[in-house]
Amino acid sequence: MIITLSIDCMGGDHGSAVTIPAAISFLKHEPEAFLILVGLEDELSAELKRLKADTHPRITVQHASEVVTMDDPIEVALRRKKDSSMRVAVELVKDGKAKACVSAGNTGALMAVSRYVLKTMQGVDRPAICSIMPNQKNGPTYMLDLGANVDCEPHHLHQFAVMGSVLFSAMEGTARPTIGLLNVGTEEIKGNEVVKATARLLQQDHARGLLNFYGNVEGNDIFKGTTDVVVCDGFVGNVTLKASEGLGRFMKDVLNTEFRRNPLTMLGALIARGAMRRIKDRFNPSRYNGASLLGLRGLVFKSHGGADSYSFEWAIKRAFDAAKYNVQEQLSTMIGELMPCTPERAAADTATPGSTI
Amino acid sequence: MIITLSIDCMGGDHGSAVTIPAAISFLKHEPEAFLILVGLEDELSAELKRLKADTHPRITVQHASEVVTMDDPIEVALRRKKDSSMRVAVELVKDGKAKACVSAGNTGALMAVSRYVLKTMQGVDRPAICSIMPNQKNGPTYMLDLGANVDCEPHHLHQFAVMGSVLFSAMEGTARPTIGLLNVGTEEIKGNEVVKATARLLQQDHARGLLNFYGNVEGNDIFKGTTDVVVCDGFVGNVTLKASEGLGRFMKDVLNTEFRRNPLTMLGALIARGAMRRIKDRFNPSRYNGASLLGLRGLVFKSHGGADSYSFEWAIKRAFDAAKYNVQEQLSTMIGELMPCTPERAAADTATPGSTI
Repeated sequence: MIITLSIDCMGGDHGSAVTIPAAISFLKHEPEAFLILVGLEDELSAELKRLKADTHPRITVQHASEVVTMDDPIEVALRRKKDSSMRVAVELVKDGKAKACVSAGNTGALMAVSRYVLKTMQGVDRPAICSIMPNQKNGPTYMLDLGANVDCEPHHLHQFAVMGSVLFSAMEGTARPTIGLLNVGTEEIKGNEVVKATARLLQQDHARGLLNFYGNVEGNDIFKGTTDVVVCDGFVGNVTLKASEGLGRFMKDVLNTEFRRNPLTMLGALIARGAMRRIKDRFNPSRYNGASLLGLRGLVFKSHGGADSYSFEWAIKRAFDAAKYNVQEQLSTMIGELMPCTPERAAADTATPGSTI
Repeated sequence: MIITLSIDCMGGDHGSAVTIPAAISFLKHEPEAFLILVGLEDELSAELKRLKADTHPRITVQHASEVVTMDDPIEVALRRKKDSSMRVAVELVKDGKAKACVSAGNTGALMAVSRYVLKTMQGVDRPAICSIMPNQKNGPTYMLDLGANVDCEPHHLHQFAVMGSVLFSAMEGTARPTIGLLNVGTEEIKGNEVVKATARLLQQDHARGLLNFYGNVEGNDIFKGTTDVVVCDGFVGNVTLKASEGLGRFMKDVLNTEFRRNPLTMLGALIARGAMRRIKDRFNPSRYNGASLLGLRGLVFKSHGGADSYSFEWAIKRAFDAAKYNVQEQLSTMIGELMPCTPERAAADTATPGSTI
């Protein structure tokens, strides 16, 4: 089955110097993939030529005359740069020329442009950002929302749960993934009113056999792997994600410093290099790169802005898998079953996309 | 200067088996400290005798006939067990017989009992829980609230900032500690309405020279040590704290597993044991044990429920330092300068303590 993806080659801190090598490497591993590389044609062609891939049979270059920078306000990305590589890449999904799009551009801009171009799905009020955290069971914990929605009502969190469940199920091949609701304690009486009301909605779905709701989970459960999916609002999710990234970086630095401190510790690290490598692999954030923007009428994946080529390739792979496993169609089906079309959603459909990020 | 502390010896997962050895060890290091050990007299006496400390000149035993268990609902701790070791230990602070109290009992119960017995400080609407996180600058990041208040208004977060600033200043000897407001981005336009309004309050104090407000910080800044104090609501704080603890435990497990995997990695770890020890020391949660319940009319410190004796001793030390550095008096002074008495506070003063935990 041939799957075409569009790649915003200008996004991220490093632009085409990272995105194009990643694209070429990805095509080597994935013979069924076709890529449309979007950006400044001259720059992309030069980079492709440099890497001897200018005649690659599965690469097309699509010119876009503008670039959304990492600092551009959402308004600029949305209203001024109408021929940005980001926007053109998303439009290719809308036009059915690509099954999914990948960008390392700034999250707020990508979400706003995607909402504007693709619109939200029927039955979804607000798209959410879903990413993967590693856990002690050696599996992935899917967590959402990670920053698209800083203020959430219970029905938003409810929709996040449904979308997270579908994504996990499709990507990991698990029939009824468990859903945890992030809270300050596991007992039902814990938490704020929004979380308590969300729990009631999820319990109803669970009783009807539609969702596999585990109950409340706490911060440590993300890494324990207590549930497959962890649901929270974008404020809590974003802070938790960044705190975890920060702690991970801190620990890596301490590990490096201590093992390089003197000849003896260096010798120890050399002898135990197998252990050192496995530890680094286990927590390598590159392996988890590629967040889904869920709830749009098309698949959009966001890579870390600072991703290197290896890491960006993971984001492409995740987008490819989502297309291959028909995540979009499965989302439509399940949301259609579960979610009535709310007035808020109907209004959002016609209004300008929000800038909650 | 002689300082007397009261210790709830029955609290926590291990009770007197942990608290009494910790108390004895602490007294060895701190010749100016006196301790009142509170709990079931027979049990405490037997444990003291076993440890040959039954005639210690700086230990007094205060009998309390009941014990608040880790699972007791707040209502039980508050209304039924009126002679609990937890409550008696807090009452000793109220009566001026102890300068601070330490308990490893359950957080919700300890906060409720402390609010009921001690009342909140003039000018403070809600007490908060403040704890220490390690950071890359090899210093402490003070973070609050960590779970006492799951729903916060801007003036609550404002008060947390003031209390955190005073605590940091007194404990660490820093004149104008920097205050960061936890948010999903550093720009002023980021975040929800509560956080934006809080930023405005903190900016006003900064302009008046009363607080050293740095601005918004993100999750990773906690571990970078960008600011001395990080302020957030209790929902975000609790989730972040527990997620960080969970990730820390996960990493420790992977480190242990990988270095014990085979004779070669074990040899490497043996040779580099200096590095292994320093890494473990650096992230040893015991060193950060002892959270302050701030904003009460007396000093109360909460130890982790699962603390071992070494860890519980750290909590005692933190309470001792807070008493020594006159944290309570400094809090009163600064809060008095900054905070007008709000109607909410006046009402809270007479009402039953809340059970937001």
